This record gives sequence, structure tokens and C-alpha cells, in this order.
Amino acid sequence: MNSLKPLLLSLLLSPLLSQANPKPLNEQLAYQLTESLTTEVGPRLAGSPGDRASVAWATKNLQALGFDKVWTEEFVTPYWQRGQARLEILSPYPQSLVLTALGGSVGTPANGIDASIVMFDSLEALIAAKPEQVKDKIVFINKAMTKDKSGSQYGKVVGARAKGAVEAARLGAKALIIRSVGTSSNRFAHTGKMTYDPAVPKIPAVAISVPDAQQLARVLTKAPEAKIKLQLDTQQTEDAVSHNVIGEITGSERPDEIVLIGAHLDSWDQGTGALDDGAGVGLVMATAALIKQQGQPKRTIRVVLYGNEEGGLVGARAYAAKHAKELDKHVLASESDFGAGRIWQFSTKFGPKSLPFAAEIQRELTPLQIQPGNNDAFGGPDVSVLKALGVPVVSLEQDGSDYFDYHHTPNDTLDKIDPAALQQNLQAWIRMTSKVANSTIDFRK
Amino acid sequence: MNSLKPLLLSLLLSPLLSQANPKPLNEQLAYQLTESLTTEVGPRLAGSPGDRASVAWATKNLQALGFDKVWTEEFVTPYWQRGQARLEILSPYPQSLVLTALGGSVGTPANGIDASIVMFDSLEALIAAKPEQVKDKIVFINKAMTKDKSGSQYGKVVGARAKGAVEAARLGAKALIIRSVGTSSNRFAHTGKMTYDPAVPKIPAVAISVPDAQQLARVLTKAPEAKIKLQLDTQQTEDAVSHNVIGEITGSERPDEIVLIGAHLDSWDQGTGALDDGAGVGLVMATAALIKQQGQPKRTIRVVLYGNEEGGLVGARAYAAKHAKELDKHVLASESDFGAGRIWQFSTKFGPKSLPFAAEIQRELTPLQIQPGNNDAFGGPDVSVLKALGVPVVSLEQDGSDYFDYHHTPNDTLDKIDPAALQQNLQAWIRMTSKVANSTIDFRK
Ligand SMILES: [Zn+2]
Ligand SMILES: [Zn+2]
Ligand SMILES: [Zn+2]
Ligand SMILES: [Zn+2]
Repeated sequence: MNSLKPLLLSLLLSPLLSQANPKPLNEQLAYQLTESLTTEVGPRLAGSPGDRASVAWATKNLQALGFDKVWTEEFVTPYWQRGQARLEILSPYPQSLVLTALGGSVGTPANGIDASIVMFDSLEALIAAKPEQVKDKIVFINKAMTKDKSGSQYGKVVGARAKGAVEAARLGAKALIIRSVGTSSNRFAHTGKMTYDPAVPKIPAVAISVPDAQQLARVLTKAPEAKIKLQLDTQQTEDAVSHNVIGEITGSERPDEIVLIGAHLDSWDQGTGALDDGAGVGLVMATAALIKQQGQPKRTIRVVLYGNEEGGLVGARAYAAKHAKELDKHVLASESDFGAGRIWQFSTKFGPKSLPFAAEIQRELTPLQIQPGNNDAFGGPDVSVLKALGVPVVSLEQDGSDYFDYHHTPNDTLDKIDPAALQQNLQAWIRMTSKVANSTIDFRK
Repeated sequence: MNSLKPLLLSLLLSPLLSQANPKPLNEQLAYQLTESLTTEVGPRLAGSPGDRASVAWATKNLQALGFDKVWTEEFVTPYWQRGQARLEILSPYPQSLVLTALGGSVGTPANGIDASIVMFDSLEALIAAKPEQVKDKIVFINKAMTKDKSGSQYGKVVGARAKGAVEAARLGAKALIIRSVGTSSNRFAHTGKMTYDPAVPKIPAVAISVPDAQQLARVLTKAPEAKIKLQLDTQQTEDAVSHNVIGEITGSERPDEIVLIGAHLDSWDQGTGALDDGAGVGLVMATAALIKQQGQPKRTIRVVLYGNEEGGLVGARAYAAKHAKELDKHVLASESDFGAGRIWQFSTKFGPKSLPFAAEIQRELTPLQIQPGNNDAFGGPDVSVLKALGVPVVSLEQDGSDYFDYHHTPNDTLDKIDPAALQQNLQAWIRMTSKVANSTIDFRK
């Protein structure tokens, strides 16, 4: 754990600790919270028993950490259940493939769907196809995803997951199979949300792992007439209840001005949601709690643990609706939701007069090996809803080079988090949040 | 594919090709055969339909490769089926763990076994326990395996898999859970054969993945009283039929002297058995076929593709029994069954007078970056049965650093093979086998 030493040293030299303060920061707190959530709750799909357990866990732990106010905000949400999935090549090379349902997919009839397959390189190639190529077949979109630090490749392949079933059904397909939207060659299938169009029949949609996609492509090259059978027994309930969980450190001078730091409490059901988004939950809880230990900030720091991000920002929209009248009091919002890799860049979305203050924050981040980004920050998925309503945001951008190796698979588990990298994240979140919460800047300007 | 160039060059300079020979070797042949077996047959658990398909595949392909004789040898074998497995922590932190049955395990009653857990660091610690610690509980052996090139760590942990159920049952346990015998932090459970003792009750035995073992250990640290439920519906048939598949290149001068090169045709059912042992099958088939292309060897080269290695060398014992009277005509035996990593060392088990010839073989292997080993070669698992009966063996030792990342898991698939490394293997096998088959040395002396 030698790699922790520079961080420890830089923390000891940081402005935070130059204040008189008898109690040393617990640098392990973000990791400890992530460990606790992923072990004691585990998977927490929106609407499930795990989701309810996570709300109870968050409420209890925010209280235990000494937050000044802790409460939950209920919202209604769909509750989708994965059920069992089975995909078999029937002929000429009988074997089973590793698959998982895409989030929101309808199931098949109980005895499954038997069909031949038509393979496309991309969603665009499917859209350009003729109905006679596709009708009564199962469509297989075999588009590979490549790795990068920023996750920019995700957007290039995720369309097949989101819209593939609609486009396939429009041409008469019986079901959709996609190659997993992910960068791992391990035999895990990646789930994630898909959508339907009310004007087009709903067909089942699944992902197969990358090695299975390569195998299916080889089978189809050798035997284009291959027959497969898909069985899927997903279920959907429309009116489950879930909650956003909120904890506040009340500002000492400007309590009505809110610095919102967030993460999402829900996860997909296949793994324990350590990278997505247990690490984010641990980070923002620890950030606010540790800042309070150093003394009350001037502005209020509000930790928002969003429910049902994965199902389509359901909790984020509920939050924005409920707090519509106080959004102008949200001086800043930011979310941690890109795993647990080191933060390598800091970006803002500020008004022009606030850019000198962005440079001031940056000066505190530079010792953590974080470089300046741009003034076009994303902010994070849940926080993007607030950004669209005019709330200034910042992004502490994480190295996501291996994020899509694990994301949305059974392999998203605690052991994939490097505690030293999470500590670097915690340092950065504390410095940025403390700086903003102790300022009087209006970042809209 | 620049890394192939040195191999290609060294092949062109090798004694084999210094003979007049119009037809260039197909350096891809081992990979092509492995690709064909793992794609067209896939998993091939002894006794299963995949096993029968693999016997048909091997027979057809040995014939197509121009072997002089091709035949099968039937044997009776147990046929064990994995069925479904489910392991849930019931309280206090409900969640499912990733598991798989150990090969040969009995199932649970249909509604499962509910119990609390007692955790041990090793098989030795379990053996040293008192019955009152274990009685009516589920035993969890949480011993980690570390990586090395030679696989020497496997022997240190596999005892828990092989004998854990007997030792746990002896102390009154209801079931056995082991941490996977493997080196990967991916969430795959490793299967492999376990055994029972007729004098001790048979209890179900499963492995959980490494991240799940870590999770269960964390749960037990927080909640030693945790309750779990195990459901397993394995099935065992005692009298299935399988086959060894044999192909020969008949010796031109000493046709009755047999150089046996082998691999096992069966695989576990979770993956497609690419590393274990599709690569070995591809290698020994290609070796003999490519040597014949260069001209008939003096001695007979017999390729033996063993059935049911995984269930306990069942095919190997059948071969030794059937060929008991001609074992003295087996001048040498060797097996490829340690994945598809580069060969880094060559070892023999020869009589002392043959050691100068071992050095001659070594001289041909040195240009392939293969170092001299010792005169205590293992030979390979199936071939070890012949070795015990006095047949000289050699080992072309592969780098197995990542073998136990994939071995016996769903992740043992074709994409894990580096074609360049497999070509280096093929070169080595051709050189060693050709040298031996064209010599007159008696390796027993
Ligand atoms: Zn997320
Ligand atoms: Zn996600
Ligand atoms: Zn093997
Ligand atoms: Zn094996």
C-alpha cells in the first residue's frame, strides 16, 4: 500500500487540515461504505427487495455519519424482473450460449422461439436491411466495442441495445440478440436498458457475451442456416415504489444554497453494483461526512442517492419535479457514476464570470494528478436532468479504461475496486466540494 | 502477427524442411482443428451428446487429414450431469452467489439444504476440526490459489476439491462449499472432479467463484450466524458408453514400434474446452499429419485422443488395459494437456543411455526458446497411466501462468488461445515427434 503515501502526505498538507482539527480524516471511509453496501445489500435492482434494503441501508448510514438531516423521497417506478434465460443453437452444432435479457425486455412464449438468424455488423446495417432479409428471423447485431479512458466508445455501440429491438421488429424479426456492449473477453453478458416503440410490436431482446458472439458468428459462417431457440421469462410490474435517499450537511452561513453531490443507489441485478455505482455512493457520502468533521461548510451540502437510474433516470426526474421551485437555489450539482478509476480530469459547466473560480478549484486538484478539462462538463447521468434545467455542474472525470469490462455484468463486484484509486477520488471530491461549499460564487454567472 | 516471423524463419531452416518437399506446412493447422472442434462440437462432457459428437468429429477429421489407420475403442463410463445449482444467503444479507457443482457431486433434496456455515482456511484445518464445530452445518473451505508458470500451486489447493466432501461429511457436515480452485478474480466458478468414500455419507459439493468466496467470507465476518440455502440437482448414470479415438501414421521401417502422442477429447461442460484440451487435440492431430506430409516416419506415430480424462482418466485406463500386451512396443508417450501457452521447457523420463538423445532433441527445441528441463518428466495425465507401466515419456512444458484463470470454467473458450503461441507449440511437437519417430533408440535403456 505504498501508493497511498503520496496521497496521505498531500492530504496532510492540504488547506482542509491546516485548520485546527483534532480528528484525523478516515481516508478509508468511501471504501468502507462501498464495501458495506455491496456486502450487506448486494444487488439492488429498482423495485426489488434489494432496492428496499439499500434505501434502509443508506438512511441508517447517513444518520450514523452525523448528517444534519436525512430523509427519503418516494416515487413510483416500473419493476422489471430478469427471470431465466436460455439460448441454444439447435442445429447443426448444438450448444448453449451465455446470455442475459436486456433491461425492460418482454419474455418469449414459455416454449421459446425457434428461428434462423440474420447477422448484421451494426444497428445502421439492420436499419438499411429489407424486410425479406429479416422477417420471421432472429436478428443478431455483432458490433464490437473498443476501450478508451473516457468511455466515448459506449455511445457508438449502445444504440443497438437501446433501439435494436424496435428496428428489428419493424422489419418483422421475432427477437433481437446483440453482442454485449462491453470491452471484456470474459464470458459475461452485459445487461442495460432497452426501449420499445408503441407503434411497433414488442420482441424479446437479449445480449450474449463477447466470446459467445464470436462463437455465434463462427457458427453462422460455417452454417448460415443454423437454427436457434430462445427462452426468456422476464416480468414487468408497472407500479412499484422506490425512493431517493437524501442527507444534508446544513450550511453555516448560506443554508438555503445547495451544493448537490450525487450517485445512484440502485444497480443492475447481475453483480453487486460495486463500480456502478456503489463506489459513487461511498464517495459522496464520505465526502460530505468528512467535510463536516472539519467544520460546518458555509453552504449546504446535499447528498442525493438517486433511485432507479438504470431504468432511465426515474429517481432523477422525480427529484427534479419535486424540487422544481428550489432549483435556482441549487448552486452546483455533480455526480460520481463512472466506476472507481482515478480521476484524471476536471471539467465545469459554469457561466463565464465563474471560470477564474474553476481555475482555483483546479489548483487544489493538480497535486492529485488531475488535469484541467473544458467548460462543457457532463455532470453525471442523474445530474444531467438538473443541468438541462440550468443548474451548473462539474465533472471529476474518472479513468474508465476498464469500466466496460465489468459494467452491467455479474462481474461488477467489490474486488474490482482499487482502494488507493478510490482514496484519490475521495481527496478530489473533498477538495472540490469544500471549495464550492465555502465560496459565495454564483456559477450561473 | 509479426511475432510469427521468427518461428516461420526457424521452421524454414529446420532439418524437416531441408528435405526435398514440394508442399509447405500449414502452420495454422493446430489452431484450425481447435477452432473446428470447439465451434462445431463445443462442450463435450464424457457420456453426453457432445462427447458422441466429438468422437464423430475426431474420426472424420483424422480420416480427412490422411492418417493411415483410424479407429475408435469403446469403454463404459459414468455419465454425470450438472443440472441446475442455486446458492442463496437467506439472512441477514439476502443475495445469490455464483456457484457450480463439483464433478460427481450428488444433488440436494429438491427443496434444498438450509444451514449455517463454518469456514476453514484449508482442508487441513477442516480435518483438524472437532465434530461439534461442523455437525449439521455447511462447510466452507476458503483457500486461495496463487499463480505460477508450472501450475505447481494447483496441487496445494485441489485437495479441498477432491477430498473436502469426505472430510466434511466425516464430521457431520450437510454440504461442502469450496472457493474455486483457480487464479482468476472473474466471477466464474471452477468445476472439477471430486470423490466420495463408501464408508462416509455422500454430501453435495460445490465451488463458488473467487469474488463470491471473498463476499461470503465478508458476510461471515459481519454475521457468523448467517444462514444459506443450497439447491443442486445433479444426476449420475453409471453405464454410459464413450470412446478413445485413435489415428496412426504407419512407420515405414519399424511399424510395430509406437510413438504415442495424446490429448483428451472430452471436456467439462461449462466452456467449450478450448484450453482444456481442445488445443492439445489440435496440436497432436496436426503434428502427426504434418510429419506424414514430409514423408513417412520410420516408427509408427499413434495419436490417441482419450475419452473421459476429466472423470478420472477413464479412457486412459481403458487404453492401457486394452493394449496391455503391446505396451513394450510403446517406445515413447507424451500428452499435451496444459492449455495453449508457449512451451518453455523440455523434460524426459528416459533410461540413462538415452540421455544423449534427449540432448539431441533439445538442440532442435532451443531455437524455439525452450530450455532443458530434467529427467523426471510427468508426461501428461492420461499418459501417466502408461508411464506407471514403464513407458518412457517426455513433457513439452507449457507456460501455464494464466491456465488456471480459465481452466474448468465457462470462460475456457477459443478466444483465450494466442494463435502464435499455438504455432510455437506445433513446431516443438513436430520437431520432438519427428526426431523420436525417425530414431531407433530404446528410451527404456
Ligand atoms: Zn451508473
Ligand atoms: Zn449503469
Ligand atoms: Zn485436461
Ligand atoms: Zn481438465
